Amino acid sequence: MADLERQIFNIHDAASIHLDCGQQLSEIKIAYHTFGKLNQDKTNVILICHPLTGSSNAVEWWPKIVGPALPIDTNKYFIICTNSLGSCYGSTGPSSINPKTKTSFGLDFPIITISDMVRCQRKLIEHLKIKKIKMVIGGSMGGMQALEWVAQAPDLIESCVPIASTTKVSPLAIAFDSVGRKSIIEQLKSGNGDAGLAVARQLGHITYLSEESMERKFSRELQDSADYQFNLSPEFQIESYLNYQGQKFIGRFDLYSYLVLTKAVSYFDLEKTYGSVENAIAQSQSKFLVLAITSDWLYTVKQSKALCYQLMKMNKHVSYVEIDSDYGHDTFLIDSDETKRVIRCFLDSL
Amino acid sequence: MADLERQIFNIHDAASIHLDCGQQLSEIKIAYHTFGKLNQDKTNVILICHPLTGSSNAVEWWPKIVGPALPIDTNKYFIICTNSLGSCYGSTGPSSINPKTKTSFGLDFPIITISDMVRCQRKLIEHLKIKKIKMVIGGSMGGMQALEWVAQAPDLIESCVPIASTTKVSPLAIAFDSVGRKSIIEQLKSGNGDAGLAVARQLGHITYLSEESMERKFSRELQDSADYQFNLSPEFQIESYLNYQGQKFIGRFDLYSYLVLTKAVSYFDLEKTYGSVENAIAQSQSKFLVLAITSDWLYTVKQSKALCYQLMKMNKHVSYVEIDSDYGHDTFLIDSDETKRVIRCFLDSL
Repeated sequence: MADLERQIFNIHDAASIHLDCGQQLSEIKIAYHTFGKLNQDKTNVILICHPLTGSSNAVEWWPKIVGPALPIDTNKYFIICTNSLGSCYGSTGPSSINPKTKTSFGLDFPIITISDMVRCQRKLIEHLKIKKIKMVIGGSMGGMQALEWVAQAPDLIESCVPIASTTKVSPLAIAFDSVGRKSIIEQLKSGNGDAGLAVARQLGHITYLSEESMERKFSRELQDSADYQFNLSPEFQIESYLNYQGQKFIGRFDLYSYLVLTKAVSYFDLEKTYGSVENAIAQSQSKFLVLAITSDWLYTVKQSKALCYQLMKMNKHVSYVEIDSDYGHDTFLIDSDETKRVIRCFLDSL
Repeated sequence: MADLERQIFNIHDAASIHLDCGQQLSEIKIAYHTFGKLNQDKTNVILICHPLTGSSNAVEWWPKIVGPALPIDTNKYFIICTNSLGSCYGSTGPSSINPKTKTSFGLDFPIITISDMVRCQRKLIEHLKIKKIKMVIGGSMGGMQALEWVAQAPDLIESCVPIASTTKVSPLAIAFDSVGRKSIIEQLKSGNGDAGLAVARQLGHITYLSEESMERKFSRELQDSADYQFNLSPEFQIESYLNYQGQKFIGRFDLYSYLVLTKAVSYFDLEKTYGSVENAIAQSQSKFLVLAITSDWLYTVKQSKALCYQLMKMNKHVSYVEIDSDYGHDTFLIDSDETKRVIRCFLDSL
């Protein structure tokens, strides 16, 4: 597989990137990976957009989907994945050095939007002189970027695959992210931001699972003892699992990035940005494959269907598949034969 | 209405209260309210068990259900409501003075169970020389107590009404409470426990609502501005609402009580305590009215139905009503004509 190591694209005219908040960044670096080989007429480009805490290394976090002979086949396609603006895996974000203060931005990093992320990705695509993107695909926050791509660059996008995503983040999802941020912000006051981040991640993880998968995987089993210990330590397996996820996360993710990225997600609303979903999509000739997960209660089947209805009303080319899974939102990240089959099938049809 | 002010019952033989954790409390006070008048043969007793953060003042937190000519009619019944052991509204709990240290228990308060709470309530009922309880009723944690009453004192209970409750707290509910406690415990380390309690309460509040009610009540509306403010302050109405709930709560509730009571809820599992739900219920001749709320995703319809199936298999007298509401778990606390009608109807049938 001709995949490359992570590369850094330095947006030379960063000041030309209009951030929705009105601020400017004097420099913007976008980390990206490519996998596979660009064909001569540059018609085999697939752009993968990562979810909230992912990186540009798509084969790492999507190992069953991206690779040789896998649905997103690195033998056939030239695959690009950027680390989102605001993240902490190589692209400019809160952990980057603020040229003004010579220390990391932290809370001074601008509040960005999904649109801002896509603006930066577009600079890279321009830089690579790519005129057509065969497919833009992503789950969750990545799906929002995929939809935003269609709105911002209708001429480039030949197909769009939002998975477990939405055109408009619901108050329920806003609420969870808001409580997570509150936890971090309160802990920052006493210098323990990471403790707040662990709580936020635990909370996030609950929303990535489903009642059924929790029941099956953990039920009410205790982790280390046969009986209740009558103390406040985590003792149920589900508690232990969440605790582990929280601790693991603070070792790999920047809390300020978490604040910024979750806020960007909360802001995502194609209707507000473009007046209506119809307006956002109107110029596009893209084909759409909308994937929803039956047990996803964060970005629900209902929300995916709402998008499909809108696309159908506009006479767009849309396929809709419900992945029947009780693993919840995170289904798109794990091994699912159905997800693999439908992506492969859709790509073959293009 | 012949309601009395809050009274305090001092369990004179506190040491005889076997706490499940194996510890003993050298004194136990149980705060309680009564409403209405006990009839001569003491056959008109209704025991109300409050939910997680409620008090013994049932007319205050259940104003549409308890009162003259209301479903739980203070003109007809003698209504008793105790503040649960471990709470902070007059009964012995973490904010009580530890006789050993002469300061409040705080984290040294024993980890208690729903069974322990009921043991204390039984002492009060004995003290009042009451031999029959016409109905024990409660929502959420109160419903768990109602079920536990049937198990502990089958001869006393003539009818039992668990509302939006369960025989066995699910891993999903355990998870939310666990993350809430984690938030408090982490904040306690830096002396900001209440900030952690506010986060826990915000999180709890999400689980008391439903996606539909949030959508209807808040949608994506902003609180104070026409457009995004691009900062990290709460700006969506749902954020503002949760923030308000969190702040209000820390003014009225003890964080250590919150730790203890949520842990007691997590532990609740009739199957574990009694070997099976069947064993727990076997001795009882009680009638049951099981109320579930269609949009409750904390203690679900499925869980209430599971209880009904078990009761039916044992040939118990059980009625089941699903309250059709999209207000979520908290439906039982708010004005619902259906809840009122069904409780009234059930009481009339006794």
